[in-house]
Amino acid sequence: MRNIRLLLQYDGTDYRGFQIQPHVPTIQGEVERALERVLGHPVRIKGASRTDAGVHALGNVIAFGTLSPIPVERLVRATNAALPAAVSVVVGDEVGEQFHPRYDAVSKLYLYRILNRETPSPFIGRYAWHVPATLDIEAMRHAAAQLLGRHDFSAFENAGSDVVDKVRNLQRLDLVREGDVLEVRAEADGFLYMMVRNIVGTLLQVGRGQRSPDEVGEILRRGDRSLAGPTAPAQGLCLVRVTY
Amino acid sequence: MRNIRLLLQYDGTDYRGFQIQPHVPTIQGEVERALERVLGHPVRIKGASRTDAGVHALGNVIAFGTLSPIPVERLVRATNAALPAAVSVVVGDEVGEQFHPRYDAVSKLYLYRILNRETPSPFIGRYAWHVPATLDIEAMRHAAAQLLGRHDFSAFENAGSDVVDKVRNLQRLDLVREGDVLEVRAEADGFLYMMVRNIVGTLLQVGRGQRSPDEVGEILRRGDRSLAGPTAPAQGLCLVRVTY
Repeated sequence: MRNIRLLLQYDGTDYRGFQIQPHVPTIQGEVERALERVLGHPVRIKGASRTDAGVHALGNVIAFGTLSPIPVERLVRATNAALPAAVSVVVGDEVGEQFHPRYDAVSKLYLYRILNRETPSPFIGRYAWHVPATLDIEAMRHAAAQLLGRHDFSAFENAGSDVVDKVRNLQRLDLVREGDVLEVRAEADGFLYMMVRNIVGTLLQVGRGQRSPDEVGEILRRGDRSLAGPTAPAQGLCLVRVTY
Repeated sequence: MRNIRLLLQYDGTDYRGFQIQPHVPTIQGEVERALERVLGHPVRIKGASRTDAGVHALGNVIAFGTLSPIPVERLVRATNAALPAAVSVVVGDEVGEQFHPRYDAVSKLYLYRILNRETPSPFIGRYAWHVPATLDIEAMRHAAAQLLGRHDFSAFENAGSDVVDKVRNLQRLDLVREGDVLEVRAEADGFLYMMVRNIVGTLLQVGRGQRSPDEVGEILRRGDRSLAGPTAPAQGLCLVRVTY
């Protein structure tokens, strides 16, 4: 059995997330349908990240088994032709039978974009959270610094996951302003359910002056989700890269 | 009666064009509905350009009359709050009663984007025509140069318009490559129906080596639409700016 790995990009706007569900459009559903059309047999893919409804990806990674001898380059081209415009394969390769896109991932990099100006934008707004308020970015950076490192991130996890170990190593949480767009770049060995969006929602409260930066370290230590800020909307989030 | 001018941006993907039609989503329909909600009376807007189905705008201009005393800045903010995410108002001002966004326009600048690489992109592809073939851009520039200036552009107009005067002054037709994206920038005192997309479709034939650059001047002189290339797809086109 060959094990094929593909790098996926998608605009998540019109999808109910990565994971396949009956009767609704999902990324996994689109990719499995396209692969079945190309390979002539049903395919079950494994993904590095089961991104939520409305979340985008510049670099999610999937893998699946096949007995087909099709060269990977031809498979990529044919799969792209069979996929809708919102989903595409960037590149593919053949990996060892043991490779698993989720379990073998060493780290993931997410980008959260905030359109920080008075006027909305039909173009940027599709991939960003529109926040017209003036933000104190230095205060947000001060708050972000308290989350760096290895911690129990329970305070930033929403209910609905059965993951037991809540400890993650947040290696990077940078805030970069480029024109009207504020980018939050978060990299960790893994993320809890809604963790990036809950961190962003909390940092935004700091940026708006609704909380002091020092509270954020306290929220982390208390481990109580009800103390943290609201979940930032899905459309600002993008899975940029999975590292193996 | 006050005459209010608004600068509009929109993602045309999910719309059947600018001009209002019954039972289908249009840009004009969205804007008039939002303005009516803000102003409390029915509004009929005039637009600088009736962009076609699927075409985008970074700077279309509309105007409408109202007796409401609402300050323009508040009107812009309230209208944006009433509009869907795909349409937004950048800025507004009050103009003389005689101002007409279409008749007073001196020139219009359109951008046509071509994603010129093997792999499609869910993000760029929403606003570009995906052309995997290698293109001879120098040949395309040579062809474009023959269209510059004041000519009868009948050869590049599709049927379906009742415009009698087919002479337009094409002041600019630049091809600029930025990474994988080839941009065609076209500026004229006005454009015939589908003119930009027919020019792009013809230039693409030159770029692929299916036509010699010199044929393009001949097509222009013959004035016969059947000699020119196919209409390039809508999603690559964007109205950038209207000059008054």
